[in-house]
Amino acid sequence: MKIGVFDSGVGGMTVLSELRRQFSSAHFVYLGDTANVPYGTKSSAQVKRLSAACGITLRERGVECVVVACNTASSIALEEIREACGSAIPVIGVVEPGVSAALAAMSQYPASSPVLVLATKATVKSGLYGKLLREKHPLVFEQACPLLVPMIEEGWTDHPVLHHTIEEYVGPYRRRHSAGVALLGCTHYPWIQAAVQRALPGWTVVNSAQAIASVLQSSTGLQPATGAAPVDWIFTDPDAIPGFVLPLP
Amino acid sequence: MKIGVFDSGVGGMTVLSELRRQFSSAHFVYLGDTANVPYGTKSSAQVKRLSAACGITLRERGVECVVVACNTASSIALEEIREACGSAIPVIGVVEPGVSAALAAMSQYPASSPVLVLATKATVKSGLYGKLLREKHPLVFEQACPLLVPMIEEGWTDHPVLHHTIEEYVGPYRRRHSAGVALLGCTHYPWIQAAVQRALPGWTVVNSAQAIASVLQSSTGLQPATGAAPVDWIFTDPDAIPGFVLPLP
Repeated sequence: MKIGVFDSGVGGMTVLSELRRQFSSAHFVYLGDTANVPYGTKSSAQVKRLSAACGITLRERGVECVVVACNTASSIALEEIREACGSAIPVIGVVEPGVSAALAAMSQYPASSPVLVLATKATVKSGLYGKLLREKHPLVFEQACPLLVPMIEEGWTDHPVLHHTIEEYVGPYRRRHSAGVALLGCTHYPWIQAAVQRALPGWTVVNSAQAIASVLQSSTGLQPATGAAPVDWIFTDPDAIPGFVLPLP
Repeated sequence: MKIGVFDSGVGGMTVLSELRRQFSSAHFVYLGDTANVPYGTKSSAQVKRLSAACGITLRERGVECVVVACNTASSIALEEIREACGSAIPVIGVVEPGVSAALAAMSQYPASSPVLVLATKATVKSGLYGKLLREKHPLVFEQACPLLVPMIEEGWTDHPVLHHTIEEYVGPYRRRHSAGVALLGCTHYPWIQAAVQRALPGWTVVNSAQAIASVLQSSTGLQPATGAAPVDWIFTDPDAIPGFVLPLP
């Protein structure tokens, strides 16, 4: 079965990595829209237009399911991607699996503990994580962290500047709440999951990749198998300057 | 006289601000390609294509001269912009005025002192600053500083994280050379000129905006006049999430 995985750039590789590991019998097509990265600072109209174009590219490559491994596109443009792909192709975003995973992790904490969503400006501005989480949990914060992706792409994943920046973003929440759930609402952030965890002792840091794998399994009937599935790589600007080469988390 | 000022985003406003102040009798048209910002991580082919499209837009708006207030486009795509604008419209890049300003500042130091160019990855990769400077000065370094633009756009222009990051980028040069010239090779950097100066005591930090104003005057015959010139604003994605609103330096 051919599965499309789409991201604005390279962040979706953290999701791809998990899916390849779990479903080695599948054949993945990874599409990175490197000509237009980043989506996180663009207008909604622009993100919808670009995402729909990527949906068409994946449909033309014959994929039978699309995983939108980009929080910005999942928050803003899921309907447009579904229209572009046609009703025969299930389209799975990262937001709902992330919300489910955060709520599951929340069950070990009292209801007065917060869920803190860390994401790009565009994802926070969409408000979708907050809306879905607040339907099930009373205390939700969304924090835009625009410097984290550039730092990850600089390779500063365990650098004092990174730790200081994370402290600026999450320190105020930790000082008010000794425990809670932090949801990594950007597919780059698994590369710094350890650094976020270090800044939030007593909290649970949730990466949605495993939850996405479960949704993929239930949507397609794919069975887990060990090994490493093949991947076709498509980049809309193949000569874009690679931000970084990092081992996958 | 109608003068086009082009940048990939909002950084060119630091150049525009200087030009407006010096030439209040002119009428400026500022074009920010916010649908495609940043240029600094894109391939050369992509930067050439996008820059040429912006040249056509400015020509159609009737400008009589174009200032390319974007180091990446100036380093990579000046010829393409000149072709798009046609031979009747002078096109002024920021690289050559910056080089002239750096060499002029160098005259107060011994020849063993370095010129250090701070710029985006794409500008450094083009090697143009280094090539032009080395024709006149023996010791030149080019340092890519990919985190500075995101920090400026976050408004962290006097933040401990910014100072720490600048130290990472320029500290090694300061430890080997007690004096020299640092050229701000990105139009965002004038917003943090004071922070760069603080990290390089004994050095001269050069911002090319004044040198660009001199070239504009000699290319067009524009005469300085006091006041503030009018500006028409064009953004290719007018709804792009504004990175920041900062007072102009």
